[in-house]
Amino acid sequence: MERPDGWELRGRPPALFRRFEFGSYSETRAFLDALAALSEEVGVHPQNINFGTTYANITLEAADGEELGSGEYALAARINALRGPAVS
Amino acid sequence: MERPDGWELRGRPPALFRRFEFGSYSETRAFLDALAALSEEVGVHPQNINFGTTYANITLEAADGEELGSGEYALAARINALRGPAVS
Repeated sequence: MERPDGWELRGRPPALFRRFEFGSYSETRAFLDALAALSEEVGVHPQNINFGTTYANITLEAADGEELGSGEYALAARINALRGPAVS
Repeated sequence: MERPDGWELRGRPPALFRRFEFGSYSETRAFLDALAALSEEVGVHPQNINFGTTYANITLEAADGEELGSGEYALAARINALRGPAVS
């Protein structure tokens, strides 16, 4: 399974991590709102989101606590699509 | 100036910090949405918010980077009012 652009592997438990950067608070906010809507749609939310004025760091842990699967990779890819291609 | 319930002092730069815990993701989400609306209203947003399924950790840094003032204390009190009394 291919890791979506910009996501790093971290463990343990295994997780995907990506930092997104934005030009303004309103862009950050729009991204977070879209992410909340996506989470609701898929019924899965990131294990942790850490954000400030112009960034959001997202951690997606393995749902079973042991191994990342197609669910996490698919969600990461959909989160990328909210934002567009990797920057920085 | 009195520190609002549940907020710790942290430095440097000086900041107010509080952890809020919730019974479910939907409560966490409702709190974060209310906080975003409050930030928009007052034109100030927390320097950092770190959240997961059932918690949100909030850091309010001193606006001038040097000393906490009435702005930060008032915002902390208004954030408390979104949530109700301190729960730990």
